[in-house]
Amino acid sequence: MVETRVAGIELGGTKCIASLASADGTILAQHTLPTLSPAETLPPLAVLLEQWRRDLPFAAIGVGSFGPVELDPAAPNHGHITSTSKPGWRDTDVLGALRGGHDEPWGFDTDVNAAALAEGRWGAAQGLTDYAYVTVGTGVGVGLIVNGRPTRGLAHCELGHIRVARLTGDDWAGACPYHGDCVEGLASGPAIKARLGERPIHGIPADDPVWQAVAHPLAQMCHAMLLTTAPRRILFGGGVIQGQPQLIGLIHAGLRESVAGYMAVPEAEDYCCAPGLGDKAGPLGPVALALDALEAAAETGTRAAA
Amino acid sequence: MVETRVAGIELGGTKCIASLASADGTILAQHTLPTLSPAETLPPLAVLLEQWRRDLPFAAIGVGSFGPVELDPAAPNHGHITSTSKPGWRDTDVLGALRGGHDEPWGFDTDVNAAALAEGRWGAAQGLTDYAYVTVGTGVGVGLIVNGRPTRGLAHCELGHIRVARLTGDDWAGACPYHGDCVEGLASGPAIKARLGERPIHGIPADDPVWQAVAHPLAQMCHAMLLTTAPRRILFGGGVIQGQPQLIGLIHAGLRESVAGYMAVPEAEDYCCAPGLGDKAGPLGPVALALDALEAAAETGTRAAA
Repeated sequence: MVETRVAGIELGGTKCIASLASADGTILAQHTLPTLSPAETLPPLAVLLEQWRRDLPFAAIGVGSFGPVELDPAAPNHGHITSTSKPGWRDTDVLGALRGGHDEPWGFDTDVNAAALAEGRWGAAQGLTDYAYVTVGTGVGVGLIVNGRPTRGLAHCELGHIRVARLTGDDWAGACPYHGDCVEGLASGPAIKARLGERPIHGIPADDPVWQAVAHPLAQMCHAMLLTTAPRRILFGGGVIQGQPQLIGLIHAGLRESVAGYMAVPEAEDYCCAPGLGDKAGPLGPVALALDALEAAAETGTRAAA
Repeated sequence: MVETRVAGIELGGTKCIASLASADGTILAQHTLPTLSPAETLPPLAVLLEQWRRDLPFAAIGVGSFGPVELDPAAPNHGHITSTSKPGWRDTDVLGALRGGHDEPWGFDTDVNAAALAEGRWGAAQGLTDYAYVTVGTGVGVGLIVNGRPTRGLAHCELGHIRVARLTGDDWAGACPYHGDCVEGLASGPAIKARLGERPIHGIPADDPVWQAVAHPLAQMCHAMLLTTAPRRILFGGGVIQGQPQLIGLIHAGLRESVAGYMAVPEAEDYCCAPGLGDKAGPLGPVALALDALEAAAETGTRAAA
């Protein structure tokens, strides 16, 4: 019996990871390269995929990309990175460049939605149909799974850009170019650095009050999520969380205080958790997208044959 | 050919409407009674349903209820109203009382989710899989449809209770017993009355500044929704909106101002709209639940036979 292989490409803001994996998520081959311009980044990935197609053929491909991206399959620019502020990447057809005209089953989503699906398949959200994966790093990203699938609608989840009630006594203006003090404008890595000014971020102790000011908007974001699609678990990753893991407990405490008994918030260890896959959630995300696409294609085939 | 009939019970906070309807939503019979205690309200509805079962048999039943309700079919108290502040209704098995031991297909959801589904089937959200139905009246309720279905997770949508950034210069404390100045605490009918104090609500002109203070938290709620599940349309009903329909335009303008170009907000007439069914969305909601249940049962039967 020939083992099923799939390919997954994570297009991140700073680096790209191409993975060839088996159906159980075992990585068979992996390449990492920096995210430069589209012309410098996409062709080497396409060449690598062609090599794999020839030497280690795969059954499906998944692409998880930084965004915003167009996810509507009916849109003419489906599979494109759209209005990003990242220089050179605006209106780039990343899916088309990586599929390269091949007709293998494919999946395409944001990098955070893909990571969320990987956590559902192999990580800390196994068995759940409603959950969220939050990354706090260069930005604040949320992969939001509802009824077993990432949300769609007009766009993918962009909860990092909601405006929130402010922590009493904190009137710092925030760093988001669009909203000032939205969640990302208060809690992303660059926002924290902007707030600290001359103080180096690595010298700030874990019990410094600044972490309350970072946890508060994230707790407000969780309050909004809980009262919208009510995820059964919220996972937290990304550089800021990895550097300050005490934030997860602060966020949970802030969430519970804010909800104020209106509904029961599960205990911290069941509710606000670290990702089960650690930093493998990112590269395994597009692998999960490819496997989802493969399974959907198999189901369609079965129905067509019945 | 015998016409398919279904029964739908809308349990509202002030009145209940029992409808017998055909599959196209035509009402064949309808009874309205005030919502008193469970012992005064549920038995007459159950008797009416038994009469219909005998004289005008129906193929499925839908129940849309004020909440909070338990929607998880795996929970022991599924079909119950749970932690409501409405006297006498806490922990009441409304679904069990109305099903009465019969095994016809049934659907159960919140009154606002049910109304949203009716709008999707016959009203202003036809053809959409991602949209929302907002009622602003005694409370602020949101029926939230994602990927064609109401959201589930730990609970149904309760977006009216998120905390929001406040309108500059407005520091009124709000009227929510849990949160003070959450959306419901600022924009519900009782909140508006509390803010107005001695001024009678019916004497307030449509261009009074108070409506800006009401529209602002609703616009913030729409901002949060747009950046969470990104509904393709938001419908607004309920007594406050019916009395002050100019609020819909104010909310749309506030939403666009708040999103601040981060993503495109569709034009007002396509995005923030009145319900297509008007005040029939409520009673037709549980009819839609019954038809959904009937169609799901038929699909399961077809699969089992295949």
